[in-house]
Amino acid sequence: MIDITHKHSTLREATAQAVVKVSKQETIDAIVNKEVPKGDVLEMAKVAGLFAVKKTSDVIPDCHPLPVEQTSVAYEIDGLEVKIMLTAKTIYKTGVEVEAMHGASVVALTMYDMLKPIDKQVEIGNIKLLKKRGGKSDFSKNTK
Amino acid sequence: MIDITHKHSTLREATAQAVVKVSKQETIDAIVNKEVPKGDVLEMAKVAGLFAVKKTSDVIPDCHPLPVEQTSVAYEIDGLEVKIMLTAKTIYKTGVEVEAMHGASVVALTMYDMLKPIDKQVEIGNIKLLKKRGGKSDFSKNTK
Amino acid sequence: MIDITHKHSTLREATAQAVVKVSKQETIDAIVNKEVPKGDVLEMAKVAGLFAVKKTSDVIPDCHPLPVEQTSVAYEIDGLEVKIMLTAKTIYKTGVEVEAMHGASVVALTMYDMLKPIDKQVEIGNIKLLKKRGGKSDFSKNTK
Amino acid sequence: MIDITHKHSTLREATAQAVVKVSKQETIDAIVNKEVPKGDVLEMAKVAGLFAVKKTSDVIPDCHPLPVEQTSVAYEIDGLEVKIMLTAKTIYKTGVEVEAMHGASVVALTMYDMLKPIDKQVEIGNIKLLKKRGGKSDFSKNTK
Amino acid sequence: MIDITHKHSTLREATAQAVVKVSKQETIDAIVNKEVPKGDVLEMAKVAGLFAVKKTSDVIPDCHPLPVEQTSVAYEIDGLEVKIMLTAKTIYKTGVEVEAMHGASVVALTMYDMLKPIDKQVEIGNIKLLKKRGGKSDFSKNTK
Amino acid sequence: MIDITHKHSTLREATAQAVVKVSKQETIDAIVNKEVPKGDVLEMAKVAGLFAVKKTSDVIPDCHPLPVEQTSVAYEIDGLEVKIMLTAKTIYKTGVEVEAMHGASVVALTMYDMLKPIDKQVEIGNIKLLKKRGGKSDFSKNTK
Repeated sequence: MIDITHKHSTLREATAQAVVKVSKQETIDAIVNKEVPKGDVLEMAKVAGLFAVKKTSDVIPDCHPLPVEQTSVAYEIDGLEVKIMLTAKTIYKTGVEVEAMHGASVVALTMYDMLKPIDKQVEIGNIKLLKKRGGKSDFSKNTK
Repeated sequence: MIDITHKHSTLREATAQAVVKVSKQETIDAIVNKEVPKGDVLEMAKVAGLFAVKKTSDVIPDCHPLPVEQTSVAYEIDGLEVKIMLTAKTIYKTGVEVEAMHGASVVALTMYDMLKPIDKQVEIGNIKLLKKRGGKSDFSKNTK
Repeated sequence: MIDITHKHSTLREATAQAVVKVSKQETIDAIVNKEVPKGDVLEMAKVAGLFAVKKTSDVIPDCHPLPVEQTSVAYEIDGLEVKIMLTAKTIYKTGVEVEAMHGASVVALTMYDMLKPIDKQVEIGNIKLLKKRGGKSDFSKNTK
Repeated sequence: MIDITHKHSTLREATAQAVVKVSKQETIDAIVNKEVPKGDVLEMAKVAGLFAVKKTSDVIPDCHPLPVEQTSVAYEIDGLEVKIMLTAKTIYKTGVEVEAMHGASVVALTMYDMLKPIDKQVEIGNIKLLKKRGGKSDFSKNTK
Repeated sequence: MIDITHKHSTLREATAQAVVKVSKQETIDAIVNKEVPKGDVLEMAKVAGLFAVKKTSDVIPDCHPLPVEQTSVAYEIDGLEVKIMLTAKTIYKTGVEVEAMHGASVVALTMYDMLKPIDKQVEIGNIKLLKKRGGKSDFSKNTK
Repeated sequence: MIDITHKHSTLREATAQAVVKVSKQETIDAIVNKEVPKGDVLEMAKVAGLFAVKKTSDVIPDCHPLPVEQTSVAYEIDGLEVKIMLTAKTIYKTGVEVEAMHGASVVALTMYDMLKPIDKQVEIGNIKLLKKRGGKSDFSKNTK
């Protein structure tokens, strides 16, 4: 785990995206209408994501433990895809990109797990960084 | 978390795939030649995946804790893509699909984290179930 | 941690109750109408409870790790009190009473944490076992 | 998880109380004389509480991870009740109220688990905040 | 993590030893008389050991999660050495040797941490398996 | 857990050593030539050690959670002994000695677990602090 003792704390923010692709409109309807048997998919997956962001350094060997100071999860439904946008912030010496990507992936996996009984064809695609702020270089990718 | 007290234990196996896409051949070379500064990417990411499979029920709300009885990680390099194939087995009342997908996603995230310093354009794509055995329905997807 | 190697696995079930007391009707209304700023209190607290039941042996020194095979959370609103009833099941050599009580207490603490910004007087009272089945003695307490 | 990046770190302290009610004097005697078969109840429950305070952000979805800088547990026996007073301190941007309440509840649950074999009627009551210092508002409740 | 799906569950037991060496008689006296400022060393270290045995598969990559069915910790003081003997049992397909050794090492580390303020020369030596039963080969080492 | 709210953050560094003793040259050869069936022992054990350092406060009751800012693992093979030297750094109010010792012990335990199938006589000896910097007193022990 690389040495960050010489670095300064600055505000860091990162937004990562994961995409959950379902196979039929009924699945989207069940999500939106909160009729998935296991519970409210978007709300429950958000909670799993909040925990995941905080646990990132327990999961990824080289990630430094850091004080996560904000996490939010937004969803965007587009046809048969649910786009998950997870944002994390910290004031620390390293960024929160991996934290945001880890959180987004766990939101997606929780959705997958909850939707499995009603849709056998769910896939998770495109986990990527959308935006980061702070640190050596800002970065922003067009979300298409 | 659904009731599985009435179910019987059978041998369950699942293989999930995650894909890590790098942006240049140098990154692939550094992985293969074990020259990535943070360490041996494939070996370290495998360890993170072994732990992740075992921790799945701590991460996904509705996943039952289950005795993971085997986990293996295989890699396949194809151009600028590294395909991760993670297989998990159990003898239990529920399957290990989500365990395999969770493991594969953490292998991919660890690679992302380790490669970040040398390649800013790494993405994770296509986390999906390739194969499952046991339970109500076997399932197999063509790996293209 | 006592020796259970000689014991037989049987179906065990336990229901525990925790009570969250708020100080004003507005708080109950905000819960019911899902207008609490931090999110859907009952849904999010349920998720925290699902995780807590599974983690009980990591938290209580003498609790044996056991395969939690079902967990459910029910709420009952009565005046300014929210009653949490958490049920857990296993087929194992020891009961799930402490698991159920731990889960119920974490549901209550999550509600406390989420309600704090809108109600400074929330208290948690009366964490107790309502019912257990299996093991040496069945047990049932009248819920008054 | 709300955004605290703009807040300043100050000394925060919170004391929470949980009450364990046993059903007979023999139970109290066994606790005090360290004759409970599972071990020294007050000492072991304290350890469980120390860990619980530190793990609060892993258990409660919206709790920020924070540097716990002190934790202490005090007990007060009053008739058939054991009062647990758990104090936690941090220098951080948010308070440690939920940490103190979580710790107190786990001390109580550990006592419950250890006393179960000798007293079937143990209940946990009255988990509440006794005192907090730092942050927007100090707060103090008379301990009756 | 090797495949154990074809193996049968049998009773397994392992006892591991760790040795804590202090530098002066006063340290031993403080332990025995429960006058170490941080608390009752032997009782608190035992609790840490109970948790550690249960968490072994979270810490050692290739360890299978298994149902720990008993754990006990015994101490033997011999001059300036405290011998820790930790025994674990399971009925499962693999043994509990690493679980016992992990538990013993955490008991020793907790003692080290608690004794540090009063003795700067504490060392941990000789973590080894004393005895195992069950599995392909029984094993017993003379404790000298 | 002692009160550190009044202390100042300074750079702290600690190096701990653990020794793994194998019983035959073939074991050393298998490690060096990466022919141990379970995988690359030194690389996998390093990962386990990175995680262990970060989890120390979850394992040792009185350890404060702290921002681990660097961890590195070095190995030295000397006859039938593998010396593990684990270094950890933080800028915080308390030292990282126990973190370094915990990490070194988990590296050793992982090696033990991975070597068990090919060498039944592996022992772990001599877990001790080699060096610390920062805090009230620097400390350095001659490594013989």
